[in-house]
Amino acid sequence: MQINILAGGPTELWPDNIFEEPGQWIGADRGTWYLYQHQVHMKMAVGDFDSLTLSEYQELQQHFVDTQVIHVKAEKDETDTELALMYARDMQPTHIKVFGATGGRLDHLLSNLWQMGDEKFTVIREKVTFIDKCNAVNYFGPGEHVLIKNDKTRYLGFMALANINDFHIKDAKYTLDLNTTQLMPKMWSSNEFIGEQVHFSLKQGIIMTVQTCDV
Amino acid sequence: MQINILAGGPTELWPDNIFEEPGQWIGADRGTWYLYQHQVHMKMAVGDFDSLTLSEYQELQQHFVDTQVIHVKAEKDETDTELALMYARDMQPTHIKVFGATGGRLDHLLSNLWQMGDEKFTVIREKVTFIDKCNAVNYFGPGEHVLIKNDKTRYLGFMALANINDFHIKDAKYTLDLNTTQLMPKMWSSNEFIGEQVHFSLKQGIIMTVQTCDV
Repeated sequence: MQINILAGGPTELWPDNIFEEPGQWIGADRGTWYLYQHQVHMKMAVGDFDSLTLSEYQELQQHFVDTQVIHVKAEKDETDTELALMYARDMQPTHIKVFGATGGRLDHLLSNLWQMGDEKFTVIREKVTFIDKCNAVNYFGPGEHVLIKNDKTRYLGFMALANINDFHIKDAKYTLDLNTTQLMPKMWSSNEFIGEQVHFSLKQGIIMTVQTCDV
Repeated sequence: MQINILAGGPTELWPDNIFEEPGQWIGADRGTWYLYQHQVHMKMAVGDFDSLTLSEYQELQQHFVDTQVIHVKAEKDETDTELALMYARDMQPTHIKVFGATGGRLDHLLSNLWQMGDEKFTVIREKVTFIDKCNAVNYFGPGEHVLIKNDKTRYLGFMALANINDFHIKDAKYTLDLNTTQLMPKMWSSNEFIGEQVHFSLKQGIIMTVQTCDV
């Protein structure tokens, strides 16, 4: 089953028709409030909601009771989005789409994108996509991979999340043959699809891919 | 002298009064067009401007001639912002502020932020700030450092750009004592200033700091 997580980033970066996604929803932080406001049923809510007024908070709590939403607060060492991803991981998903995780605070954005490098997410790493109006972000470990072109996407970036080894981009506009270890994380930006697929491989490390459009 | 670079990111993320900055301006990519439209004198322009119409392009070229703007195109292996930063570096600046480098395409954002890890920018690394409406990003190599709180800033993030060693955050809301090597780049997000300054140190590597506000 597909799991969708809505985090609290700027709503103007949501893709069109976001709430037509199949599967179940988890609200993280202010994303919970947005799901409630849009009357989208959620399976679970993560956050302390300290930015809500008391009456908003009470209204939300009552909604959780009425609709049997599980409500948890993140521990000190985990962010709301991280905890939502941990719960999603344990629901044995086919795919996890994360919305509302970009824009606004850069510390949140980078924390959201980089947590997929954590070992606890190895089992779901290749099932997660971070999505906003313009961008789709995926993650790949060692092996041979195919990236399928999204509608409306033109540009493509590859970023080494950690040291990578033997990284090859085979059939994009710009091919790459990195035969040694890349010690410093690096974004290879502004590459392009030439067909509907791009093949690439790596022997070690984690590659984050960004499919993106002109804005 | 302060150098300001304007890249082509979304204009709605510009900070208020952006064109009241002292110093000289460099336009990168579509940022050049914005400087021209706002009648801001630029020292240099980088980009091929292939998104302009022919008449816009000719108008811009004439402006370059009239106002003695140096116009260069980035080589295949460098981005426009990277080339603008290389020129800024060679102007022996006291400080470099980069605007228009966030928002929109995530591959551009990550390329912009991570290029400061490159050795060729070591001499200017601690002089560069990436700025948008909500965020200010700085970079620090090994040593003892003080971060001065910006107006309107509340939150603070620290990101390891590469392997770091012996990293200590001393007087923020959340202190940190990392005595070993952090092998995977990581964002410590949602920290906070408790006074007007935060002291931190590292023995090896590069730390990117993000000062940010609630949005």
